[in-house]
Amino acid sequence: MSVEQRLAKLGLQLPDAPRAMGSYRPAVLASGLLYISGQLPISKGKLAYIGRVGAELTEADGKAAAQLAALNVLAQIHAALAGFDRLVTLLRVEGHVSSAPGYFDQPRVIDAASELFSEVLGDKGAHTRAAFAPPALPRNAAIELVVTAAVD
Amino acid sequence: MSVEQRLAKLGLQLPDAPRAMGSYRPAVLASGLLYISGQLPISKGKLAYIGRVGAELTEADGKAAAQLAALNVLAQIHAALAGFDRLVTLLRVEGHVSSAPGYFDQPRVIDAASELFSEVLGDKGAHTRAAFAPPALPRNAAIELVVTAAVD
Amino acid sequence: MSVEQRLAKLGLQLPDAPRAMGSYRPAVLASGLLYISGQLPISKGKLAYIGRVGAELTEADGKAAAQLAALNVLAQIHAALAGFDRLVTLLRVEGHVSSAPGYFDQPRVIDAASELFSEVLGDKGAHTRAAFAPPALPRNAAIELVVTAAVD
Repeated sequence: MSVEQRLAKLGLQLPDAPRAMGSYRPAVLASGLLYISGQLPISKGKLAYIGRVGAELTEADGKAAAQLAALNVLAQIHAALAGFDRLVTLLRVEGHVSSAPGYFDQPRVIDAASELFSEVLGDKGAHTRAAFAPPALPRNAAIELVVTAAVD
Repeated sequence: MSVEQRLAKLGLQLPDAPRAMGSYRPAVLASGLLYISGQLPISKGKLAYIGRVGAELTEADGKAAAQLAALNVLAQIHAALAGFDRLVTLLRVEGHVSSAPGYFDQPRVIDAASELFSEVLGDKGAHTRAAFAPPALPRNAAIELVVTAAVD
Repeated sequence: MSVEQRLAKLGLQLPDAPRAMGSYRPAVLASGLLYISGQLPISKGKLAYIGRVGAELTEADGKAAAQLAALNVLAQIHAALAGFDRLVTLLRVEGHVSSAPGYFDQPRVIDAASELFSEVLGDKGAHTRAAFAPPALPRNAAIELVVTAAVD
């Protein structure tokens, strides 16, 4: 089954890869590595989840935001590699969750992204992870995912 | 002297590598690089240092937490590579110190991890570093270390 | 035109590469990658921009701090590679902006660094980026840049 078919089975589809928000590239490929710029929970060019988990947003909102940011990561991989065939494996997923004081369950939120990667990429979706709990992110986004992958 | 012998000389021993706290891998190896998931000051499956340096915790606590997280990094390297022979060098150590407002001496805290790496890995322990001062970390951990290494 | 000439055209010059603030290396090279330690807005050994953008510092201060930190990144590349010939491309620029509550325009601040990289490195200055909005950074620095590059 293709990545697109696996997404469809989950009721999801690959979005257009979001454009950079400044003077940088969405993705750069070198030395067998694909670096992808930080992805926010953007849908059709608009930030869809704004604020902090545990305050303006619920944990369920946070998970939905993490899944949306993960879809944008997949879209960037697809755009950079013209598909997923050249992808060997994800290497690192950094998950930053904008968090209210006293909210400490960021790993549960970022699991929504990790599980999506595993479900649609299979073995290639395996990754190391680091979760963070900042009190704010750029544009007041709820989530930022920073991903590095290995490619053929 | 082996890494284990150097640790013993410091009165330390290699712990079991902590399990992942979600749907990800503790370590992934590709393209001559070893990515290790964010390591917390966990001992025997329990978070041993909770809270912020400069508030609930002293700077000495922070250094002990950084050393414990560094031991877990070493344990992950050992588990991923079945020893340290294949390790070429550490490349990057990101040190996140949960910090009270007005506490700015994070480099001193993370030095406890950097010095441990140098003492037990010798030349292979050389690394670049970036220290950070977030007001909170997942699970309310005091320290998170995110390490990348080069391997044969 | 050389990097130094391009800098001169902008009225800038390559500073001495700042020393490490602890037990680590300013840069490590392996597997075709150059990792550079976190760079602060340091000038002649002194931190030149202290505090948060949107509080103690203006956005213009933040941009100046980002540019100064970017100059230090360039100085580290120059020192590690004995020039810029071996540089293939920047890969990742992480831009951490110490930020007052409610300030969310970190991408605009970090653009000052991104634009400097493009102006002086040309095509080799292309990079992916992730911006962050922590409430504090080590030493109360305004900006921290963490850069990884590909080399020959």
